[in-house]
Amino acid sequence: MPELRLNVITRDWVVMATERAMRPDEFAAAERARPPVEPYDPECPFCPGNEGQTEGELYSTQGRDGWQLRVVPNKFPALVATGERRRRGAGLFHVMDGVGFHEVVIEHPRHDLTIATMTEAEVAEVLQAYRDRYAAVRRDPRVEAVIIFKNHGEAAGTSLCHPHSQLAATPVVPFQVRARLTESVRFFDEHGECIFCRVMRDELASGERIILESEHFVVFHPFAALSPFHTWIFPRRHAASFDDAGEEELVDFARVLRRTLRRLRKGLNDPPYNYAIRSVPVKDANPDYFHWYMTIIPRVTRVAGFEMGSGMFINTSLPEESAEYLRGIPDEEG
Amino acid sequence: MPELRLNVITRDWVVMATERAMRPDEFAAAERARPPVEPYDPECPFCPGNEGQTEGELYSTQGRDGWQLRVVPNKFPALVATGERRRRGAGLFHVMDGVGFHEVVIEHPRHDLTIATMTEAEVAEVLQAYRDRYAAVRRDPRVEAVIIFKNHGEAAGTSLCHPHSQLAATPVVPFQVRARLTESVRFFDEHGECIFCRVMRDELASGERIILESEHFVVFHPFAALSPFHTWIFPRRHAASFDDAGEEELVDFARVLRRTLRRLRKGLNDPPYNYAIRSVPVKDANPDYFHWYMTIIPRVTRVAGFEMGSGMFINTSLPEESAEYLRGIPDEEG
Repeated sequence: MPELRLNVITRDWVVMATERAMRPDEFAAAERARPPVEPYDPECPFCPGNEGQTEGELYSTQGRDGWQLRVVPNKFPALVATGERRRRGAGLFHVMDGVGFHEVVIEHPRHDLTIATMTEAEVAEVLQAYRDRYAAVRRDPRVEAVIIFKNHGEAAGTSLCHPHSQLAATPVVPFQVRARLTESVRFFDEHGECIFCRVMRDELASGERIILESEHFVVFHPFAALSPFHTWIFPRRHAASFDDAGEEELVDFARVLRRTLRRLRKGLNDPPYNYAIRSVPVKDANPDYFHWYMTIIPRVTRVAGFEMGSGMFINTSLPEESAEYLRGIPDEEG
Repeated sequence: MPELRLNVITRDWVVMATERAMRPDEFAAAERARPPVEPYDPECPFCPGNEGQTEGELYSTQGRDGWQLRVVPNKFPALVATGERRRRGAGLFHVMDGVGFHEVVIEHPRHDLTIATMTEAEVAEVLQAYRDRYAAVRRDPRVEAVIIFKNHGEAAGTSLCHPHSQLAATPVVPFQVRARLTESVRFFDEHGECIFCRVMRDELASGERIILESEHFVVFHPFAALSPFHTWIFPRRHAASFDDAGEEELVDFARVLRRTLRRLRKGLNDPPYNYAIRSVPVKDANPDYFHWYMTIIPRVTRVAGFEMGSGMFINTSLPEESAEYLRGIPDEEG
């Protein structure tokens, strides 16, 4: 019999489809093997030499032969930095000017690397750039929420293979963010505890879905993972916002993120994936309710009408099995 | 400057990405042209002669040379009809047995047809089957919500090209359904009116996003369409649940649905799409707040990290422009 599980953080019900469950290694589709990527592509706007195509640099670090990492405004921004946060529209036609920030983090000069194949120190530089830009854009009074995310691979929504990620600072609190915050406040009122801290404690006690642990982070599949290999990285220390992360935590986060992505890469044959770092809305001054974290969503199955229509998810992989599979995959060189 | 629009029914904010907007006809990708499909495929489990592969028929109608339409249990069900609706689990690990119904509507004996290419009478039979099965499963006390949906094309999540759709009756009210119902109740409390009726009236008054109208239905793009060519079909008469639809309404719905899908097919080169019929949860006895409707989501773009991370949507097509484009496409033969 299929089993329904409630994801207590997203509040989604997930059908664990035992009748059509696949073995973890079946998600490593051979057809995803991509042609080898060159270290340099003269046509790529993010490759060294083409800096003229990405103007208005906001942040950069230096490497041995030039820049190591750059943050630039998105050339096709969903949100723009100039203008007021005006409401317009009439009746139920609510409109707002699309002000905010939409930035691109060019993570490395090399065209062919990914977070999984960079060095730990390079990944730490990426996370430091995230944190610095997060801290910078949240100071703008028009900003309500900041999200950092990555699209890896075409099926995950990117056509540019040069390693990059994005930051979006929105002038409204999105409904999904608001709804999850409301649920976390309700839990805090009932239990006097952060629901994320509680989930992490319970997952550590169970151990079944843990993928790896470090001094500052826990990597696991949620009990009600919304899709195969859906992974969460939680900081052990309670903090509501990503820019609260300290230097030592960031370095540890880099190590853990890299190891996690190396296992997914090896175990699933370089799958397309999205990741996102979620934080509390920036003007929420109470630090007790929410807990920043990263969610990683390998795009190994398709969302179809069942999910769209019902708002429930179907997961054809048991998180206990996929966690065991990923625990068994070496993440170091060799 | 990009514009944010609030979808007052789903409560989602949508970025209307004017900077990267595409012309309506640019969504008609040539690569979607599929190889011609034969009217009969001996390997297809839904084709006549293979009825032994889909046992436990729940409903059928007769055509000239055998069955015209069949409803059967899904062979790989997300929810099963036997067993009690038991809660299990400990602490925050909430589990429920996956009881409910998951049925397949085999819409036509011919392998190569779709709703867009069947006759109006055939489409009406499909909708009558939906309504009859909806009315049957909702009587089961374990059922909380019923959703009817279709996946058309591989990118929309189906590998079977034989025309079919699905019904899922769930033993819980999904969070998304609950959240939208709560919002519609709030609107009713404030305004003494159904928010769907109000949206339909405002859309008719504006006219800009209307695609077509009939005696009983209005077809339009929502003001804050979540994705390109996102389409809603609303019944003019207020009714909370799809099985409230009368015979004459169903016949008119068939005509309108077929015409809408013909325009999408012609205008976007047979795009993959999902549709779903949304109703109030079945045990909600108050008929005032909710309004059943169909949502159609052509899968012409990909949801990526921005949407997943922020819970906001990016739409690269202005609904006013895509509605105008679809209004200009003939939906009759020839």
